[in-house]
Amino acid sequence: MIPYQIIEKKSLGLTLSESEIRTFIMGYSSGTIPDYQMSALLMAIFINGMTVEETLDLTRVMLESGNRMDFSAAPGFVADKHSTGGVGDKVSILLAPILAVLGIHVPMISGRGLGHSGGTLDKLESIPGFNVNLELKEWEDLVVHEGLGLIGQTGTICPADKKIYALRDVTATVRSIPLISASIMSKKIAEGIRGLVLDVKTGNGAFMQTLADSRKLANSLVSIGKGYGIRTTALITDMSQPLGFAIGNWFEMEESVKGLQGQGPEDLMAVTYALGAEILKMAHPELSQEGAVAMQKKTVADGSAFEKLKRITELQGGDSRVLDDLDKYSKAKFQKTIKSSKSGYLAGIDTMALGFAGIQLGAGRKMISDKIDFSSGIYMHCKLGDKIEIADDLLTLYCEDETKLSAVADQISAGFSFTETTPELPPLIVERIV
Amino acid sequence: MIPYQIIEKKSLGLTLSESEIRTFIMGYSSGTIPDYQMSALLMAIFINGMTVEETLDLTRVMLESGNRMDFSAAPGFVADKHSTGGVGDKVSILLAPILAVLGIHVPMISGRGLGHSGGTLDKLESIPGFNVNLELKEWEDLVVHEGLGLIGQTGTICPADKKIYALRDVTATVRSIPLISASIMSKKIAEGIRGLVLDVKTGNGAFMQTLADSRKLANSLVSIGKGYGIRTTALITDMSQPLGFAIGNWFEMEESVKGLQGQGPEDLMAVTYALGAEILKMAHPELSQEGAVAMQKKTVADGSAFEKLKRITELQGGDSRVLDDLDKYSKAKFQKTIKSSKSGYLAGIDTMALGFAGIQLGAGRKMISDKIDFSSGIYMHCKLGDKIEIADDLLTLYCEDETKLSAVADQISAGFSFTETTPELPPLIVERIV
Repeated sequence: MIPYQIIEKKSLGLTLSESEIRTFIMGYSSGTIPDYQMSALLMAIFINGMTVEETLDLTRVMLESGNRMDFSAAPGFVADKHSTGGVGDKVSILLAPILAVLGIHVPMISGRGLGHSGGTLDKLESIPGFNVNLELKEWEDLVVHEGLGLIGQTGTICPADKKIYALRDVTATVRSIPLISASIMSKKIAEGIRGLVLDVKTGNGAFMQTLADSRKLANSLVSIGKGYGIRTTALITDMSQPLGFAIGNWFEMEESVKGLQGQGPEDLMAVTYALGAEILKMAHPELSQEGAVAMQKKTVADGSAFEKLKRITELQGGDSRVLDDLDKYSKAKFQKTIKSSKSGYLAGIDTMALGFAGIQLGAGRKMISDKIDFSSGIYMHCKLGDKIEIADDLLTLYCEDETKLSAVADQISAGFSFTETTPELPPLIVERIV
Repeated sequence: MIPYQIIEKKSLGLTLSESEIRTFIMGYSSGTIPDYQMSALLMAIFINGMTVEETLDLTRVMLESGNRMDFSAAPGFVADKHSTGGVGDKVSILLAPILAVLGIHVPMISGRGLGHSGGTLDKLESIPGFNVNLELKEWEDLVVHEGLGLIGQTGTICPADKKIYALRDVTATVRSIPLISASIMSKKIAEGIRGLVLDVKTGNGAFMQTLADSRKLANSLVSIGKGYGIRTTALITDMSQPLGFAIGNWFEMEESVKGLQGQGPEDLMAVTYALGAEILKMAHPELSQEGAVAMQKKTVADGSAFEKLKRITELQGGDSRVLDDLDKYSKAKFQKTIKSSKSGYLAGIDTMALGFAGIQLGAGRKMISDKIDFSSGIYMHCKLGDKIEIADDLLTLYCEDETKLSAVADQISAGFSFTETTPELPPLIVERIV
């Protein structure tokens, strides 16, 4: 079949065979199929969907387009956590060192900010000198000997996905369950892991905003993982407000450090421990949920997880002194605190608007070539359910460009809603999918 | 709105505003929006469709991307015919001179072969020297003073459509009613016509194979024409077998000449006269259907229509001697006649397969760079409903490359089906849409 006929087949809602998917994806990856044909197929998939079988085939083809890591030499359980993305989600920065201290090997390949959401790589790079572009061999050594290594996608890991991902980002075909599933899972499978926990966000700060869509995505991801013999579970967690209080790269790094020093926000720590428990129970089936959480709390209490974060920072070229002395980090030049004009119980936050506001302040990119201001961002002074009085602080904006503050403040002020009585809030951990 | 958001809106099945359509189409036409974003939007339109309003907006934007002709100086009624394309459809070559003789001005902008269907420009170019790339001024003079001029789409007429059309052809987004409608109608409106008759083909040799789809397309085309103050009607005509007997460029030219000399196939002449009558009745509302047909038959009987074809051939640089002496035209080197292996009444012909067979024999292009063999093609010896005996001739293939004959013969032989009693056949003129 020629590319034209494969596009036509999917545009009519028919099912593609494994060889049709392979022909197209490898043709695109090698450059014989042009961008405009790939984007037509992506849009047809976006609208008409893919069967479970097609999604598995797509995952396999993207996986096989590059190298698959082999960590069988690692002495402990090799596992990773992946989040579908939200606002203020810095769990990876806490969880990777906690797990490493507990004998888990975490070969974490992270991404950059996308849409309204932040990216772990950008947050790590807020530490002066931190290098997320290690040679593969160097990274493998860190994972085996230190228990963790933190890098970005390289040209040899799922190169087909890398090229397709960039095209999806400019053709409005990101929010597709089969495309998201194959993209995430091909990279995770390529990591050579034996266990995986997925943090599938739901709510108005998530890519999948309804519980039904989040559940579909979670099930799709879990079934692919299992199909590859990886122990996989997913937690659907709430993203109807930012996780923790900090939004923006250095702010989130700072909050992560405080978390590892025993002063983390309650919701952030709860999600971190819940996700960590999933992996610890895979590694040690005899462990209870309480036991798995207690083990993690101990790595915080005794400082070992924080020491691990500092050590990996140094090994990846970063200056760990800023982690020890958070106040030394240079602050954003300008700030503006938004105060409440209403009173009542905080019942709703426009979380996605906060994510985009962070980007406008300089914490993310509007174009691929934009430079990030690591000190820019937002610090929240409230959580859903809080009793707020008129003139109470809601949040503070931080920015290098004073002129942006008022415009951004105006955009997000309307996103707060209040009720007279305590509002009903979604649970933090909404569902567990196995 | 940025292009991304416009694509996203259509991918979710929402309706685009006039300014969104304009931003996107003009951005693509001017090169600021890349192919891959346009193809994503085209696929979203292909699958999710467009409202009547969106289709009108798209037509307007494509129209306004280039020049619109002004034939108000022409002394008579300015009108054109357009066919949605089929196999053996050479009506334009007969009808343009007939109408010109009857005082109608026909500024006909035609296309080349597309998919399985032939194109008027290719057929005209089978006449040695015939130039379909006149300067616009030269063409306008012919339309005003001679009553007809036969050219292809230029860079100044709907350039946005020209660029989009090429992309649709390689991204499997051709068969979309709103995209077809806007493409056809923007070009027809740009011709500066006051009347238009559309020949919307239906059946297994048409792009829209079901009557329901053909009817939808006809209604869409007619409503756009009327929206622009153009008197517009459509005839849905049968394409469940080739029109006439000849398929292939010179073969069709030859059959057209014979038609203008009073020896045309019955179906070809009936469709030609029916379409012509629509335009003549627009120009002369007092005319009866019979009167409008009779006027046209007279231009054939007295030779004036044929003289007009010869004259326009000469004025457009063609050698009209081949029209006077058809036998002088060089024949294809090889031929093969397919005989029937069954007997009965001919009840079905795979018309699209015949169109593609013609292309394989050299009568059309598989790639844009292919050269056409004008003498290649197919001559039919039968029509649906004929009583066929075993070993009767069904059709003859003509080709410059002997090796192709057997392969093509094998492909199309299976496309003929027979019944024991006279089969029920669709009417030639299926419906009239006003």
